[in-house]
Amino acid sequence: MLIKLDGSGPLFLQLYRALRAAILSGRLTPGARLPSTRTLSLETGLSRNTVLLAFDQLLGEGYAVGRRGSGTYVPTELPDDMTSVARASAEPAPAAPQVVPQLSRFGRTIRDWHVSWVGREARLAYDFRYGRPAMEDFPHATWRRLIARRLRSLSPRDFDYGPAAGAPELRHALAGYLQRARGVECEPEQVMIVAGSQQALDLTARVMLDPGDRVLLEEPHYAGARAVFLAAGARLVTAPVDGEGIDLSRVAASARQVRVAYVTPSHQFPSGAIMSVARRLALLAWAERENAHIVEDDYDSEYRYAGRPIESLQGLDRTGRVIYVGTFSKLMFPALRIGYMVLPRALLQPFLNAKALADTGTARLEQLALADFIAEGHFERHVRRARARNGERRAALLAAIAEHLGDRVEISSADAGLHVLLWTPKLPGGRVASLCQQAAQHGVGVYPVEPFFLERPRRAGLILGYASMSPQRIRSGIERLSDVIP
Amino acid sequence: MLIKLDGSGPLFLQLYRALRAAILSGRLTPGARLPSTRTLSLETGLSRNTVLLAFDQLLGEGYAVGRRGSGTYVPTELPDDMTSVARASAEPAPAAPQVVPQLSRFGRTIRDWHVSWVGREARLAYDFRYGRPAMEDFPHATWRRLIARRLRSLSPRDFDYGPAAGAPELRHALAGYLQRARGVECEPEQVMIVAGSQQALDLTARVMLDPGDRVLLEEPHYAGARAVFLAAGARLVTAPVDGEGIDLSRVAASARQVRVAYVTPSHQFPSGAIMSVARRLALLAWAERENAHIVEDDYDSEYRYAGRPIESLQGLDRTGRVIYVGTFSKLMFPALRIGYMVLPRALLQPFLNAKALADTGTARLEQLALADFIAEGHFERHVRRARARNGERRAALLAAIAEHLGDRVEISSADAGLHVLLWTPKLPGGRVASLCQQAAQHGVGVYPVEPFFLERPRRAGLILGYASMSPQRIRSGIERLSDVIP
Repeated sequence: MLIKLDGSGPLFLQLYRALRAAILSGRLTPGARLPSTRTLSLETGLSRNTVLLAFDQLLGEGYAVGRRGSGTYVPTELPDDMTSVARASAEPAPAAPQVVPQLSRFGRTIRDWHVSWVGREARLAYDFRYGRPAMEDFPHATWRRLIARRLRSLSPRDFDYGPAAGAPELRHALAGYLQRARGVECEPEQVMIVAGSQQALDLTARVMLDPGDRVLLEEPHYAGARAVFLAAGARLVTAPVDGEGIDLSRVAASARQVRVAYVTPSHQFPSGAIMSVARRLALLAWAERENAHIVEDDYDSEYRYAGRPIESLQGLDRTGRVIYVGTFSKLMFPALRIGYMVLPRALLQPFLNAKALADTGTARLEQLALADFIAEGHFERHVRRARARNGERRAALLAAIAEHLGDRVEISSADAGLHVLLWTPKLPGGRVASLCQQAAQHGVGVYPVEPFFLERPRRAGLILGYASMSPQRIRSGIERLSDVIP
Repeated sequence: MLIKLDGSGPLFLQLYRALRAAILSGRLTPGARLPSTRTLSLETGLSRNTVLLAFDQLLGEGYAVGRRGSGTYVPTELPDDMTSVARASAEPAPAAPQVVPQLSRFGRTIRDWHVSWVGREARLAYDFRYGRPAMEDFPHATWRRLIARRLRSLSPRDFDYGPAAGAPELRHALAGYLQRARGVECEPEQVMIVAGSQQALDLTARVMLDPGDRVLLEEPHYAGARAVFLAAGARLVTAPVDGEGIDLSRVAASARQVRVAYVTPSHQFPSGAIMSVARRLALLAWAERENAHIVEDDYDSEYRYAGRPIESLQGLDRTGRVIYVGTFSKLMFPALRIGYMVLPRALLQPFLNAKALADTGTARLEQLALADFIAEGHFERHVRRARARNGERRAALLAAIAEHLGDRVEISSADAGLHVLLWTPKLPGGRVASLCQQAAQHGVGVYPVEPFFLERPRRAGLILGYASMSPQRIRSGIERLSDVIP
């Protein structure tokens, strides 16, 4: 098989793209066996480790299945959301002469990616999908009422362009909430409303990073952030995460001259660790020393079940180093597309300008309803109830794991959030994908942690989200899972 | 006065920023006289033309008032939306050591801009504001009903992340509408929903342009597009517009190797010209020759009152050169923040990835209501009614201009849209700003065309939007305006 690398970005991603293209174009047909890592290593001149990383990417995204020991295969059915994109670009307009568009560096970098937040529909009976709250926990009737009330009372001005920073009502309500609930130190004018935390990360990359600049990531880390930084042409360096969060003492020497560090201190994604105060202070001191900024992604720490609350990293920041990012995707619902940034004052104007250039500002109706939802206490009431319900789900999950999986798994920190990470000590790293497939055959959806590592992880692990199932179903799912965990 | 240029971007913008900073910081106090252009030219070493361009920018944005002949002054009251941004960044957090953030090239370029779509509130009795439809023309009751109906019928999946391309329902409804109404050749999968046409321009700049690449603009042109391209580090070249639209035969020699041309063929902004078919074909041939792409911004051509309809440029494109951009800001309302792109198939995947990285996709509720609004015929009914009402406003405006202003003004094309451009042959170019001020003292809001030119225009001109006033009020406004037009 002829492998042609495109010369853009990390080698493992080049190989991943080449193999994915072969799969999507049909050169590697469904069910076909991929060349072995050894063969590919010889053919391409890439190290075996690089080939393994490319395979992990393919396996993690569902472009390949199977055990690496006995062969890796093209799945017989590709997920819908992947093929729809692939189909669209694979069929040129009839009779149109081929145009090869000249793209920017950014455009060339991302051209062949498959970026999507659309999950496969929960076709499995016991699907431990993660990254979403339970839609049925949300007080839909209240939300409908607030939207309807705002719709009736909007003034002509409310239909006009709004400030790039967002609706003042929402910025004000949010500033109050963040001070009360998260120990964030801010005035309403430091709060900028964005279209979800994804836009916050993208604006940060644009305003702060030139191609070649270094970004420090936790290892493992949220892949959506990694994609933004890679697209911006950043060089990634990582520091490992332990039970206390990111460990800067083990950062690589190349971590010098880092411009931005991206961290999830209140609930590390995906390990679940909560960063200790000592590590927080060390991180802030490091940022000051390096003249770097820290992105604090506080995506779901409202769901906290044990241990004493630790306030935001931002609240400890005395020198304007922390860019605080939050989202309503895990507390309301993702389709709302509302997130926010709390910006150091020195960064306010460039970020406001970047937001204004990007989309002039976020749509207003739902911002206003959300401001009411917060100001009238519905939001915090909902958070309390959703936390209690997810606490029940979590308790059921942990009990079922203890009963059915016992010492075959090791639970990474599970004090907060909507998912747990299970390390599976007896599972060879290369067998995670086939285990996930076996579990799916038993009707159980579990997901490998590997895509959230930049380097190949030393241990095998699974992510289990528990927000979208009842305690009863969670118990049954774990019972079934126990049949396939070695 | 010490003027310090920041070395970034065009010289006139550097000077503009330096003067604006002096105004906002209070070094130039309200009411103070700015140094003369001659003095500034001597002090800075910049040409007088460059100084004049910087003054135009200040005058156009309201940072300065007065006649250039007898002096230019800092206004006694700065518009709210400017000072709020300026205030926020002028006051550092108390007791915080000063951090000088390291920004990217993009961040440094835009840091000191003032980008805002928020218009000053219509404080004037006869305010010919432009860029907005009449909010009272919109069928609010129908819209409320559709939103409420969708809110009641949403499935759990509708609250989840959606495809980056937007809601399939809306893409489908839009593709049908664009085929019917605008002669756009497209399948629904080529339609990508974005957060207003501003996001379409920003994504285009990111996917297509590297710093230093050339962009061709009409002269005059929409300043919001210019800002996006400047922020991306593009070099701008222009071609003049006459009654038939952009005239490529008069393009500068430096217009070689242009990557993207940005045009408004169906209703040139702000001149109002409608691009002739011959010019359209010439533009397409040019794009093919140069291997360039064309952004067709079709922002308000549904409002067409005279002349036979000309279909979109995109409909003539046979080689996938045209990126078609549309918005609902002029047909629905700006706070909706929904626009769309129709993409050549070869560009679909990079743009979908760019959108997914930028914000994962646009919020869903209003997309779905809008899909219903189109599919059930409300949209086209609204467009017909709004066109009729704006036709009455336009007729009143043109009649009043003929009666009260006569040959003191020359109307640029007025066959479409929601504004007219009036050339004022007897008004010296430098006196436009003071004329606008005089008009405001008479309760009439009119706006200089100068900010929409890259080079200093040879003629003085005023933009008058007529969507937001009744025919009666339009007549009175023009009568009052006649007192100040020379």
